[in-house]
Amino acid sequence: MTDVHPPELRVALVGHGFMGAAHSQAFRVAPRFFDLPLAPVMSTLVGRNAAATTAAAEKWGWQKTSNDWHEVVDDPDIDLIDISSPGSTHVEIAVAALAAGKHVLCEKPLANSVEEAEVMAAAAAEAAKKGVFAMVGFTYRRVPAITFARDLVARGALGQIRQVRAAYLQDWLVDEEGPMTWRLDKSKAGSGSLGDIGAHAIDAVQFITGQTLDSVSGLLHTFVTERPLLDESVAQTSLGGAASSERGQVTVDDVALFTARLSGGAIGTFEATRFATGRKNAFRIEIHGSKGALAFDLERENELEFYDAEAPSDLLGFKRILVTEPEHPYFANWWPTGHTIGYEHGFSHQLVDLVNALAAGEQPTPSFADGLQVQRVLEAVERSSDGGSAWTTTA
Amino acid sequence: MTDVHPPELRVALVGHGFMGAAHSQAFRVAPRFFDLPLAPVMSTLVGRNAAATTAAAEKWGWQKTSNDWHEVVDDPDIDLIDISSPGSTHVEIAVAALAAGKHVLCEKPLANSVEEAEVMAAAAAEAAKKGVFAMVGFTYRRVPAITFARDLVARGALGQIRQVRAAYLQDWLVDEEGPMTWRLDKSKAGSGSLGDIGAHAIDAVQFITGQTLDSVSGLLHTFVTERPLLDESVAQTSLGGAASSERGQVTVDDVALFTARLSGGAIGTFEATRFATGRKNAFRIEIHGSKGALAFDLERENELEFYDAEAPSDLLGFKRILVTEPEHPYFANWWPTGHTIGYEHGFSHQLVDLVNALAAGEQPTPSFADGLQVQRVLEAVERSSDGGSAWTTTA
Amino acid sequence: MTDVHPPELRVALVGHGFMGAAHSQAFRVAPRFFDLPLAPVMSTLVGRNAAATTAAAEKWGWQKTSNDWHEVVDDPDIDLIDISSPGSTHVEIAVAALAAGKHVLCEKPLANSVEEAEVMAAAAAEAAKKGVFAMVGFTYRRVPAITFARDLVARGALGQIRQVRAAYLQDWLVDEEGPMTWRLDKSKAGSGSLGDIGAHAIDAVQFITGQTLDSVSGLLHTFVTERPLLDESVAQTSLGGAASSERGQVTVDDVALFTARLSGGAIGTFEATRFATGRKNAFRIEIHGSKGALAFDLERENELEFYDAEAPSDLLGFKRILVTEPEHPYFANWWPTGHTIGYEHGFSHQLVDLVNALAAGEQPTPSFADGLQVQRVLEAVERSSDGGSAWTTTA
Amino acid sequence: MTDVHPPELRVALVGHGFMGAAHSQAFRVAPRFFDLPLAPVMSTLVGRNAAATTAAAEKWGWQKTSNDWHEVVDDPDIDLIDISSPGSTHVEIAVAALAAGKHVLCEKPLANSVEEAEVMAAAAAEAAKKGVFAMVGFTYRRVPAITFARDLVARGALGQIRQVRAAYLQDWLVDEEGPMTWRLDKSKAGSGSLGDIGAHAIDAVQFITGQTLDSVSGLLHTFVTERPLLDESVAQTSLGGAASSERGQVTVDDVALFTARLSGGAIGTFEATRFATGRKNAFRIEIHGSKGALAFDLERENELEFYDAEAPSDLLGFKRILVTEPEHPYFANWWPTGHTIGYEHGFSHQLVDLVNALAAGEQPTPSFADGLQVQRVLEAVERSSDGGSAWTTTA
Repeated sequence: MTDVHPPELRVALVGHGFMGAAHSQAFRVAPRFFDLPLAPVMSTLVGRNAAATTAAAEKWGWQKTSNDWHEVVDDPDIDLIDISSPGSTHVEIAVAALAAGKHVLCEKPLANSVEEAEVMAAAAAEAAKKGVFAMVGFTYRRVPAITFARDLVARGALGQIRQVRAAYLQDWLVDEEGPMTWRLDKSKAGSGSLGDIGAHAIDAVQFITGQTLDSVSGLLHTFVTERPLLDESVAQTSLGGAASSERGQVTVDDVALFTARLSGGAIGTFEATRFATGRKNAFRIEIHGSKGALAFDLERENELEFYDAEAPSDLLGFKRILVTEPEHPYFANWWPTGHTIGYEHGFSHQLVDLVNALAAGEQPTPSFADGLQVQRVLEAVERSSDGGSAWTTTA
Repeated sequence: MTDVHPPELRVALVGHGFMGAAHSQAFRVAPRFFDLPLAPVMSTLVGRNAAATTAAAEKWGWQKTSNDWHEVVDDPDIDLIDISSPGSTHVEIAVAALAAGKHVLCEKPLANSVEEAEVMAAAAAEAAKKGVFAMVGFTYRRVPAITFARDLVARGALGQIRQVRAAYLQDWLVDEEGPMTWRLDKSKAGSGSLGDIGAHAIDAVQFITGQTLDSVSGLLHTFVTERPLLDESVAQTSLGGAASSERGQVTVDDVALFTARLSGGAIGTFEATRFATGRKNAFRIEIHGSKGALAFDLERENELEFYDAEAPSDLLGFKRILVTEPEHPYFANWWPTGHTIGYEHGFSHQLVDLVNALAAGEQPTPSFADGLQVQRVLEAVERSSDGGSAWTTTA
Repeated sequence: MTDVHPPELRVALVGHGFMGAAHSQAFRVAPRFFDLPLAPVMSTLVGRNAAATTAAAEKWGWQKTSNDWHEVVDDPDIDLIDISSPGSTHVEIAVAALAAGKHVLCEKPLANSVEEAEVMAAAAAEAAKKGVFAMVGFTYRRVPAITFARDLVARGALGQIRQVRAAYLQDWLVDEEGPMTWRLDKSKAGSGSLGDIGAHAIDAVQFITGQTLDSVSGLLHTFVTERPLLDESVAQTSLGGAASSERGQVTVDDVALFTARLSGGAIGTFEATRFATGRKNAFRIEIHGSKGALAFDLERENELEFYDAEAPSDLLGFKRILVTEPEHPYFANWWPTGHTIGYEHGFSHQLVDLVNALAAGEQPTPSFADGLQVQRVLEAVERSSDGGSAWTTTA
Repeated sequence: MTDVHPPELRVALVGHGFMGAAHSQAFRVAPRFFDLPLAPVMSTLVGRNAAATTAAAEKWGWQKTSNDWHEVVDDPDIDLIDISSPGSTHVEIAVAALAAGKHVLCEKPLANSVEEAEVMAAAAAEAAKKGVFAMVGFTYRRVPAITFARDLVARGALGQIRQVRAAYLQDWLVDEEGPMTWRLDKSKAGSGSLGDIGAHAIDAVQFITGQTLDSVSGLLHTFVTERPLLDESVAQTSLGGAASSERGQVTVDDVALFTARLSGGAIGTFEATRFATGRKNAFRIEIHGSKGALAFDLERENELEFYDAEAPSDLLGFKRILVTEPEHPYFANWWPTGHTIGYEHGFSHQLVDLVNALAAGEQPTPSFADGLQVQRVLEAVERSSDGGSAWTTTA
């Protein structure tokens, strides 16, 4: 800790749903555990509904509110705009913010289409030339077990990667009477399981293996095509709320299944589903290489299983590593050995990496170009599904 | 136990590899734990190599040997011919045996092609009219946890089945210098992981769910296309042996990945691989329905995980059931509660069911027609893979 | 959220080690996720070393510092004094604070001896008459899985409790060259594993079962009796630091093993150790009753295993419940279903319960009387160990 | 396999309960998988009830029966007498058999008292001088995971052993209306959980660590002191049967808890219980040393968990080893990698080791002297429990 206080990074957050809460917690907590070169200031919370925005700002500790995101884009006191609103809003806000010289952190998936993502990536590339940077929020990269998995692959502990198995399993749609929300409306969410949680699977696998998904064969499926509309007169969350007697069309996928060929010669299977009865947030990744293997499950996010194929022949097995030691990514700044962290901590780690990059004048990762590449994979899965699961390139 | 000794069932076993050992153990053990209506007699072991066959017969307790399977087909003292030789031999032996009025138990996969399987199923149908029966050895149906999974689905504990996830993971080919065996030669084995272990996944899922795989989209992949030839002068097993300096072509798949639409509306992902570094015999099945879910892993074959979605909302979770109680399939005849059984016991259970069906003059299951249907699925996966993973019907 | 801002609760925190960090996080975070009737204000951080205290205050967000705890006892602006300094300091600070009309939250174990704890409990009883309350920080009561375990027992889901098995396993002393710290010095820490982590086991078991430990038979053991002294010129933490070449006497137990008879007829085994090689923070609790059972491991703190002995006989098994649903204690205020929380969240829950009690003018739990009772159990274990493990009453 | 047939080892088995079935399976199966230097012949099954003995002999494949054990002691054709009858019968049969020059395999615990065990050990020592050998059946030593655990300790993989945690957990007495059997009658069984399953814990820990339990502090407890008597007119097993309306006194312990000091400086906790609701046959062992640790659970008997404290600091963790590889004890003779074995296989391994020792004219282990030493530990636990859990030496 130095005597001199770090310069401020004044933040506006757009959106106050689930993601808004998670991002607010990161702005509040990260500076208390990590020595940051810039001091985030929770300046403005942006939301369309004045009362709800004010309530959220007060609850989460934002200094002021706005009901029009243009205001923060125009506000000279804002340094960073954090976009946590639905995917359909990303492109307009991000492009305007970057043009106004604001750094941008944008929730995933980057956009609702490749076209939008291309616009965003182009705007980000242009802004970067002026030292204004954009980052997309694939937060799970910053779960210590996943970051450490990447490190293990990078240091060659798995040898040549051959097989990947990624499944993001949730079950919150199993009940056929569960209501419609914006997440089930293609015009707002872009896609269903595919973009919401399948995007995480794509990014995490690419991040860990250092390989990209070059072509895919996919199937999107919707089990329940009509659901009760939400009663708009009752308070609701982004994942649910009170149902009315009317029904609306579900226009996104419940399940996305796809197979992929990766750039380094690996092949992989992917699944994203909200119909995996019994699995609440089971984001599972298994990677098999010529020298070793890894297994991870987000329901046990403080653990990584590692198999060293070069161990003595009677001592082969998956080792359950508690990724809670000072030697593990990000952990030295938290609690003593063996004391766990939870879901929200990944958001703090993301902020740490973003702030460090901004202070250094470097491009934070994943960039909008990275987000665009994931968007292309998502679209390729959709096209493959529309085309009878024919192999489809992602380039 | 009755006073009257049951009539004999005189058996000839063709093949003395891994499966020969497993079947021999069943003939030896099952009658000691189950009251069988027919008493199996381990009469004749058949193998081409006289010395090896004699040694195996002595080791396993067969009364005599033959080096030509035609002899046991012609032997009036033989009631049942158990075919445990490579897939390429199945059709000829089975058809001849059935024509000669012998019951047949044939290892899976039923044959190396749909054409062969059709011939076998036709022969079996013909023989059945005369009370001569054929069964295919999908032994895992008789693992108590899998049989019990079937029971749970049948009694409605899962509601409507929606998603299936089946993966049979082995890693014995990860070493690129592992030698060629008949299992890697398409002319003998028919296919690789697909027919060897993928067939188990197909049968088990169909058995548990009561649904058939109606169409598939698949990918077969071979990572290592050349391997050292076996040194024929050195003793070897069906899974390995000593390598020579020459190399042979691997003509089967290392990995099979496929997606399926099931007859009852479910969708499923399937994987069969010998390249899943770290997984020795991990045959995993997960089934998600509208009311519940199941999970199984053959590496922990005495356990079945069951999720009841209708439990109280604060008591939801996967229950780890030790399938070792008298109430569970087959278990009352083994050991007291909590005392485990192993891989080989499924073969005893298969024999019990076969003998009971034969004594009752009924068709044992799975029949050759069932085996043919699995063969059609295997072939559809191959055709889909050849055709760019296009959806392919299995009918 | 109401229009009226809640009244403030102005806090002074004594101590800025590991516990100081955890308590600070609770003051910072809890009000953002829970609607509290009093608004905690992080007023004063107290520590003897001026520079270190100032640095910690700045890092954690305390408004000012003091280097003498008497100052905050005398400060009319302070409402709550949170004592997170070593056990040897508890009695003096707590008694003075209560006498001065400050509420007190005191870390566990309450004191370093029964005598001290008695003084504290008496002071607390006296203060309570005037509406000034004291609480002892057995935080693990507020881990949702443990709170929910208590609920299950209370609603009769386990029937009559018969057996308890509690083990708190750490391994940070396995290395014989690990240095002396105040935690290994009886004059400062009171005891070793026994008071530090065994106290948690005692409190959690009593909390869950609703039974007290009435008599114990115990063994304290120290494997390594001399360790390198810390080099005082180098920065250090409460769990370690840089070693010098001199050695000091370890005067506390490395391991505490004890057996107990509980007030409701149950019997239990307890273990607290810093020598359980490979276990980082494995606080395991198993409870067996006439109708059910529970199992918990802090290394997987978002899970509780529950066994219902009254389930159908073929559906018996331990159910792994993810205690991350809105129906589970404290969870509705955090993240959506399946999203985990970590070690620090228990401190927020503790604060929520404390603030709610203070606002209601009610005694928070566990009280100093509860802390005294645990202290009596700790002392009984020590006396039993000194007396050849003879049974010793705790009353 | 050699050309010459090995000489016969003609066996008489006394007792046809659960253990009789397990031993019969070993005699039947072991010679088929292992090349034994002597060929066991299942000659005579001995039981008091003529009809039951005849039925069991026929079921299990014994050539003839006897209803008086003296007959097999006197039979010159018998080489080995296998004593699987209740503990109260061991001493008389074993002493007579050894005096008659028969090798003896005797189930554990060796006897119902130290006095009986001393007589047996003396008789065995005398017989050994004449090349007649006695072995006690602590079968779990021959579970591959436990044998391998012993090997790991012996090769120094754990360093100096410091802590042991052994718990044998069953729950078949949880139901208070479960009937009396001979196992609950001290005059027949000697003790309850202590001798039945606690003896396994003692032997396994001593076997793995190479240390003996030198002193103990113990507690025996009986929760249910009266149970319905069995209706003698109805068939029953050694673990249960149909209850009558009369009640009998339970004279053995339901639960045994004890702490021990081991000869090499380790300390350990032990538990044996039939009241661990939800645990069917959970024999768990954990060993912590200065360099590593082990964990085992018989409910997953094909797995051993191993922790190497000398692994890189970011790769520490318990490795789940499937003990099913050719490199693991006994496994090369069974199935291919990853194919599991079950409870009964330990009995085959025990027989293999016995026969090899007899053929070599060497003392098999564990000897009656080993069995006597375990008996002394059992008695010390009882004496300690009677004496208020005071520390009691086992010598």
